[in-house]
Amino acid sequence: MSEAIVRFGIIGCAEIARKVSRAITLAPNSTIYAVASRSLEKASNFAAQNSFPPGTKIYGTYDALLEDPDVDAVYLPLPTSLHIRWAVAAACKGKHILLEKPVAMNVAEFDEIVKACSENGVQLMDGTMWMHHPRTAKMKEFLLDKAIFGDLKSMHTCFTFGADADFLANDIRVKPHLDGLGSLGDAGWYCIRSILWLADFELPETVTALPGPVLNDAGVILSCGASLRWKDGKVATFHCSFLSHLTMDITAIGSKGTLHVHDFIIPFQEEEASFSIASEAWFDEFVTKWTGKRSEHVVKAELPQEACMVKEFSSLVNAIRTKGSKPEMKWPTISRKTQLVLDSVKQSIEQGFVGVGVLQ
Amino acid sequence: MSEAIVRFGIIGCAEIARKVSRAITLAPNSTIYAVASRSLEKASNFAAQNSFPPGTKIYGTYDALLEDPDVDAVYLPLPTSLHIRWAVAAACKGKHILLEKPVAMNVAEFDEIVKACSENGVQLMDGTMWMHHPRTAKMKEFLLDKAIFGDLKSMHTCFTFGADADFLANDIRVKPHLDGLGSLGDAGWYCIRSILWLADFELPETVTALPGPVLNDAGVILSCGASLRWKDGKVATFHCSFLSHLTMDITAIGSKGTLHVHDFIIPFQEEEASFSIASEAWFDEFVTKWTGKRSEHVVKAELPQEACMVKEFSSLVNAIRTKGSKPEMKWPTISRKTQLVLDSVKQSIEQGFVGVGVLQ
Repeated sequence: MSEAIVRFGIIGCAEIARKVSRAITLAPNSTIYAVASRSLEKASNFAAQNSFPPGTKIYGTYDALLEDPDVDAVYLPLPTSLHIRWAVAAACKGKHILLEKPVAMNVAEFDEIVKACSENGVQLMDGTMWMHHPRTAKMKEFLLDKAIFGDLKSMHTCFTFGADADFLANDIRVKPHLDGLGSLGDAGWYCIRSILWLADFELPETVTALPGPVLNDAGVILSCGASLRWKDGKVATFHCSFLSHLTMDITAIGSKGTLHVHDFIIPFQEEEASFSIASEAWFDEFVTKWTGKRSEHVVKAELPQEACMVKEFSSLVNAIRTKGSKPEMKWPTISRKTQLVLDSVKQSIEQGFVGVGVLQ
Repeated sequence: MSEAIVRFGIIGCAEIARKVSRAITLAPNSTIYAVASRSLEKASNFAAQNSFPPGTKIYGTYDALLEDPDVDAVYLPLPTSLHIRWAVAAACKGKHILLEKPVAMNVAEFDEIVKACSENGVQLMDGTMWMHHPRTAKMKEFLLDKAIFGDLKSMHTCFTFGADADFLANDIRVKPHLDGLGSLGDAGWYCIRSILWLADFELPETVTALPGPVLNDAGVILSCGASLRWKDGKVATFHCSFLSHLTMDITAIGSKGTLHVHDFIIPFQEEEASFSIASEAWFDEFVTKWTGKRSEHVVKAELPQEACMVKEFSSLVNAIRTKGSKPEMKWPTISRKTQLVLDSVKQSIEQGFVGVGVLQ
């Protein structure tokens, strides 16, 4: 018996919603059912411009969409500051929620979202797409292989892109009352998530922001970095920025191996993605060249990673709807940890780059 | 007229001296003329085991080698704590000096070495080999091309290798009175040098050590990192360690381009070395894959980089000897800057990870 089709309502017509709408269409267990904007016209245009299925319900308010009993799940690409209001509202209407990142302005807000989801038995997942690429699972296999990688020792991740003048003046990600976490919330989210993913979601003991963040006149972070330290001694750094050329790296160093990937958030190509590993590398007799194993691994992607994400989300929704399963708490748990570290970086910046203890 | 041959005396029989001896033999303007150890037997064995030219002078004390008027230049691979004594002694005997890194235990010591070299008109160069690989010049061309790379924004470099139990117990690099700067002096030297090289040797304004350095029982650094910040806002981080798998990365991000290299200190192969660049990369319409230029550049090496280093050093020596040129101050200047940043990292660790201003 094939899986039921989860009917999505899209709340808000952000640019990212175009990509996720396509993903909903590509995912075999999902369909676009409705779209809402603050005006009927905007929603209608968005549906037309993005080839939404004929008959897609068009709503001129978010509330109207949430009232539709045939909407199973919502995708929420709204500005971060609106997440708490609309995610809680969606949960209270029994809608499962695929929530854009950063999930909230801070952990306290996110906890309210999680509480509303729990009380209403709905699935919550954030929109961190690369987590769902088959490459990610392959990399994890390598990282967990003690014989090849050993114990995780240090990590560096970065995500930077060069925003243009229009973005830096007008984008919601530079506006304190919209996506007020700026590049930390947008780009830094991925850096922090990747570090936590590397560390099997063990939280660091302390987070220390690095000197030299760049803030705009409204106090929104355009560029920053941080240093993380775990109880067992492993360490990480990351750097995120709206002010540098597009770069997205993970370097993970274990006691026996090293992982490099240069396109972890959005793969260079859609059909396949690669990563490179080295294990037990050393030098020849005169220390003039390397010995040991270095290799490039290519992983095919049958579906784009964002469609894998939607598919996974909808499978969980279907399990709840048809099998009486409980919502999968893994996803909100890692969202919360990511937000917690993000909050700590922000706090460290605000307090002059002191080390901030992360509540375990 | 072909260049004169510079006659090297090798002072100390460290493992690294094997590699540099080979390089002296390979460099067309250089030859091994003498070797000294603390015992005649050790020096003699070292010469035999490393196929030194027949007739190589064998000395049982460093002083005896320095007294030999036919020694033009010395290569000093002694433990760092001995550099000041023997580099100053060599300079006073009019010997040009190729000095292993780190150049001294601190800048004050190095300044005494520089002073002795200046007073005696001898060339001083440190043994940072990768600076002399033709790839390094090629990478610099890219970095200086504003149309391709734009302005330098952020950097991350690392050098880690997994030392074995014997190294961690017995190597001079874990002994406070020998190479007492530990992994910061050994591996961190390369990280700092590469960052300064990226920044065209402009010194950072502040250096802040990262939380979580690992020290051995004697207080020698086995693993550490730092964050650097320049007046114009550019930033860098580095990580160095004796406790992780072999990794040596440079990531340099400009406003328009990104450079990646994963074998900057010792190339994967001796005959050629590569680096990758991306410029004006962006995404396709749905932000599902990259657009823009990404390319791998391969640079052939006619000579191994360490032989390029010896050749460059000997050319400078010959210019002094035959053309009356002044010693090239570029090399001791960048050695000093590297040591200065290194000292700042150490100071920051000792002072609890405070930001340390770097005296310009």
